[in-house]
Amino acid sequence: MAQLKNDRLLRALRREPVDRTPVWIMRQAGRYLPEYRATRARAGGIMELFRSPELACEVTLQPLDRYDLDAAILFSDILTVPDALGLGLYFEAGEGPRFRNPVRSAADIAALPELDPERDLGYVMDAVRTIVKALDGRVPLIGFSGSPWTLATYMVEGGSTRDFARIKTLAFTDPARMHQLLALLADAVTRYLDAQIRAGAQAVQVFDTWGGVLGHAAYREFSLQYMARIVAGLRAGAGRDIPVILFTKGGGLWIEDIAATGCDCIGLDWTADLGAARRHTGARVALQGNMDPAILRAPPERIRAEVAALLDSFGPGSGHVFNLGHGITPEIDPENVRALVEAVRELSPAYHR
Amino acid sequence: MAQLKNDRLLRALRREPVDRTPVWIMRQAGRYLPEYRATRARAGGIMELFRSPELACEVTLQPLDRYDLDAAILFSDILTVPDALGLGLYFEAGEGPRFRNPVRSAADIAALPELDPERDLGYVMDAVRTIVKALDGRVPLIGFSGSPWTLATYMVEGGSTRDFARIKTLAFTDPARMHQLLALLADAVTRYLDAQIRAGAQAVQVFDTWGGVLGHAAYREFSLQYMARIVAGLRAGAGRDIPVILFTKGGGLWIEDIAATGCDCIGLDWTADLGAARRHTGARVALQGNMDPAILRAPPERIRAEVAALLDSFGPGSGHVFNLGHGITPEIDPENVRALVEAVRELSPAYHR
Repeated sequence: MAQLKNDRLLRALRREPVDRTPVWIMRQAGRYLPEYRATRARAGGIMELFRSPELACEVTLQPLDRYDLDAAILFSDILTVPDALGLGLYFEAGEGPRFRNPVRSAADIAALPELDPERDLGYVMDAVRTIVKALDGRVPLIGFSGSPWTLATYMVEGGSTRDFARIKTLAFTDPARMHQLLALLADAVTRYLDAQIRAGAQAVQVFDTWGGVLGHAAYREFSLQYMARIVAGLRAGAGRDIPVILFTKGGGLWIEDIAATGCDCIGLDWTADLGAARRHTGARVALQGNMDPAILRAPPERIRAEVAALLDSFGPGSGHVFNLGHGITPEIDPENVRALVEAVRELSPAYHR
Repeated sequence: MAQLKNDRLLRALRREPVDRTPVWIMRQAGRYLPEYRATRARAGGIMELFRSPELACEVTLQPLDRYDLDAAILFSDILTVPDALGLGLYFEAGEGPRFRNPVRSAADIAALPELDPERDLGYVMDAVRTIVKALDGRVPLIGFSGSPWTLATYMVEGGSTRDFARIKTLAFTDPARMHQLLALLADAVTRYLDAQIRAGAQAVQVFDTWGGVLGHAAYREFSLQYMARIVAGLRAGAGRDIPVILFTKGGGLWIEDIAATGCDCIGLDWTADLGAARRHTGARVALQGNMDPAILRAPPERIRAEVAALLDSFGPGSGHVFNLGHGITPEIDPENVRALVEAVRELSPAYHR
């Protein structure tokens, strides 16, 4: 593997000194970029895009060619694992992801196979290898997966949901079956991320998009313990020295317990006070985030002021990875993203002297 | 006004000794009750229901006839204030509330009238008087309003929204105009709650349903400061000795600042750790909540275990009002609500000896 020319992200994740705060943006390869929309149109659809290692590589690199970002993130979907387990992922216009075969009964859960990532998700591993080769050490590549709880919500609901009625009914009325599914998913996600690391990913992030819909105790029972299992599993495999970022949307109240999993970094959404989060987690973990993506609707000077406020909130020293608090949305003007990236570049060195 | 026969709620809100933890349920007069559905069908629709003082009284009392609850809450809608300001509230099947005349431009905001609650919302004041008379001191009546920020989201978006794109664009690109609207709404809500108190409401709750979509700093700027203004305004009027409950869904990270408004009680959603919230707010405020409404899908013994866990988390002493962390949903079995209320009644006296 080529030596990294820019290791700012990895250093910040390990809380080692950096010259400036690294920055990347969740969903940075996405619909707000005209070149992404062009590639996607050429591919024919979102599934054709992430199932083609060449096209996935192409869109992964697009934001790096526009902006001075400190990381690439694998272009893929969070639902590749359930798809590989036989659920039949498809996308309905305006409705988001759906599964042809949702998991509802004990028999459905018992029938789920064991995941072999190279066999079942070879297109993802090929994409990782293709991207790492194309990056040639320019910046690190972040691999990722959905968390077991988040994957389970889609698998049980059959798609997106507003009320999480089916999954919560399962969790609260038949916890043993729920745990059976989550344990299976924790094992699959561990294998999946381990395989991404073996293919060349230099950091990994677990997206717990829906952990925040759980109550205080239920989050620990149904989401966090399985992410902890993944962290431990990666440490025992190829990921011994690979930084792990755990991002729970709506998890700001729970960061001390998230830090206790042994992860390297906690991703924060914009409801968290970054400075307070740093004080509460001490020097145990790095923090990633946490600008409201909606601020990118504002003019560049407002964006710059928000970047300044966040850098100031974290304060001097390493351990901060600048990012949004959730994925960038399609209607954002790419020039406003430039304002964000440039503000981090210009304003953050003062915090690293 | 008749002397209260059950003042458990008011005592707990003031953190005075009680014999057991009071309990009421957000949206307790609602679609999960067959008698509510019957009255609503008879009325012809939701707007006919809350605009009729007699029918609003009828449904307000229905849950009290079924369960041993410690409070009634005015049956109304959170969007009565914008409707009275001329926005033209209506309900579309499956779509929730909508406004015929959303507020979008500076001219729209400048044209909003000053609210006179007895003149413009006389049907609500009549409902309060009718209910208080019918209650005859059985339990206190809680009045309520949406928070300025929450009302503004519906007024600017024109209805429900998933991404809050219009309101956030307004807040981040033209904060002066946003503040003009919020100040007007804070004044209107203060008058509205003051009028409910004069009509007989013995406690009031401000529902900040959407404060939690704001970032840490933006919440203080666009939501909390206006709720603080309402608390101060009520203290200067008829509400000098009337307990005020502030409920921000997703506000668990911000309770110390919410307590600093001078409110009597903070409503918590189920993501908060009730015991930790009590420690963080000290003896300054009471706490209300915070069971996940989805637990009501589980069998009675699971509901009872959750009640036990929450009572134990708060611990001994007064200052807890048992409630869900959000409104009860339509598909819940009324017998499961009975299990909740009975569990609070049976298990809570041990914490008040």
